[in-house]
Amino acid sequence: MAHKIGIIGFGKIAQDQHLPSIRKNPDFELIAVASQRGLKPDEAKHAFQDYREMLKAVPDLEAVAICTPPQVRHQIARDALLAGKSVLLEKPPAATLSELQDMKLMAQKAGKTLFTTWHAQYNKAVHEAKKALAGWEIKRLQVTWKEDVRHWHPGQQWIWEAGGFGVFDPGINALSIVSFIMPEPVFIKKADLQFPANRDAPIAADIQFSCAHGQGDLNAAFDWRQTGPQTWDIEVETANGLQLKLREGGTKLEIGGKLMVDEPSEEYEGIYACFDTLLNERTSLVDEAPFRLVADAFMIGRRVQVEAFED
Amino acid sequence: MAHKIGIIGFGKIAQDQHLPSIRKNPDFELIAVASQRGLKPDEAKHAFQDYREMLKAVPDLEAVAICTPPQVRHQIARDALLAGKSVLLEKPPAATLSELQDMKLMAQKAGKTLFTTWHAQYNKAVHEAKKALAGWEIKRLQVTWKEDVRHWHPGQQWIWEAGGFGVFDPGINALSIVSFIMPEPVFIKKADLQFPANRDAPIAADIQFSCAHGQGDLNAAFDWRQTGPQTWDIEVETANGLQLKLREGGTKLEIGGKLMVDEPSEEYEGIYACFDTLLNERTSLVDEAPFRLVADAFMIGRRVQVEAFED
Repeated sequence: MAHKIGIIGFGKIAQDQHLPSIRKNPDFELIAVASQRGLKPDEAKHAFQDYREMLKAVPDLEAVAICTPPQVRHQIARDALLAGKSVLLEKPPAATLSELQDMKLMAQKAGKTLFTTWHAQYNKAVHEAKKALAGWEIKRLQVTWKEDVRHWHPGQQWIWEAGGFGVFDPGINALSIVSFIMPEPVFIKKADLQFPANRDAPIAADIQFSCAHGQGDLNAAFDWRQTGPQTWDIEVETANGLQLKLREGGTKLEIGGKLMVDEPSEEYEGIYACFDTLLNERTSLVDEAPFRLVADAFMIGRRVQVEAFED
Repeated sequence: MAHKIGIIGFGKIAQDQHLPSIRKNPDFELIAVASQRGLKPDEAKHAFQDYREMLKAVPDLEAVAICTPPQVRHQIARDALLAGKSVLLEKPPAATLSELQDMKLMAQKAGKTLFTTWHAQYNKAVHEAKKALAGWEIKRLQVTWKEDVRHWHPGQQWIWEAGGFGVFDPGINALSIVSFIMPEPVFIKKADLQFPANRDAPIAADIQFSCAHGQGDLNAAFDWRQTGPQTWDIEVETANGLQLKLREGGTKLEIGGKLMVDEPSEEYEGIYACFDTLLNERTSLVDEAPFRLVADAFMIGRRVQVEAFED
């Protein structure tokens, strides 16, 4: 029997990614949508403006996908878990780590599935990179995540507010790949965060990592001021000379200069396949590592003021 | 049989607090000390300048107390756990949350005790406050933690560096009491962090919390510029009218204006009593909540520049 699912928050990411992935997947049946604007795709039997109504009115709802902005996810997840529903969370899973921890405990208590999705982890190239690196010592890591904020977030003011994450909004995708593929955990040792004079969130960040073994040279450069070609690359070199490069946001994998994987992103297909397994096994997957690295960078990072930035 | 313990890092906190508490407690025997200066109290049979030597040379050592600065605790804890020793961590337990998480997993893997000490949690007044608040809904919380940094940290430059925590160095004591006594978790909703123009760490912070139930008015004010009388107070009011006040850093408890507990701090005695129990039960106590709240405050806090501050 397909899992009866509802979507809460029916904005761009829900319409572009969640809806088509659920449609394609016979293990899910979309039966309800809650959105402030009362939007409803054809197949959903029920539409609500208030998600609390949905949780009450649709008893056969097994799970919800929370696609609202991160600031309100915690309360919604609490209410859903208390109503006995399993929960899939868009990224980042919450506004703070304490909220995520609370959701995790709530899900354990309720005996329901909680799933933090880090979509970049589901590409084939990323999985192959993880396999190739397993067991090796890392000598060098260079993450380059540079994009044009004007293109990707035109006129979005909330990303510049305190708690809006700034360049860590895309940067957390890179960190979710790094924490997934690295054969041992990485730690933030040093970070320089560049705040525009007129903004409360960083526009660029330079990060230095360490890992438990070895004296590797591990770095990341995030920048939101890149015009022209966009760069989402992760290069890794192991102590035994393996050279690995993930390009274009983790869709292409080169090993030793040779293209090994070049497949279009099927992130959300992978996310829903994983959610099906988690629901069937009645277990949770709460990967806090990428979010924890972001918090660490803000906690120990040095703030540098740079010139004002206008959209 | 007493637990054979070693101290790593033999500075002020080790000499003032750990040493006398171990001496008073018959369940512990101090047999080794590692300090860069090679210091050794009389009763310790072994002294080392390099803790790694100690871990190798003293096979009957059961546990270590790590009293170094937080930046190096992670590596030391890893080495100690890998050498089969249980670990007590001074506060804050690590430089970052990712490091603490790693220690936690290492301790589980090694089957050894890991203990994050938050010393203010061990006062009698704090325990009585927790009992009094259990099960009630919180209407108001006001934390006032104001002290004179020139008095408490004369000439210490590292506290002003990025990753030195600034006013959260004392503030984390308040947060460790709050997270311990509150009947439900608190979350940081908003924070204003005041950075002196010439410093990389905040000198003051205003924090607004929420908790899962109720629309309470929950706030904290941390300030390092308080001359004259110092203030370390936590006031709580419950929805049913209970008025509770912890004063003087959690040593005095007033309920409804009446002084209920007034006992000198026995924090480190409590810490070693707890460590004894954990070692006997072969279990860990890793309370990440206070540290997580600090990271959340840095992650979502707004940075405000204030006038330069000279020691």
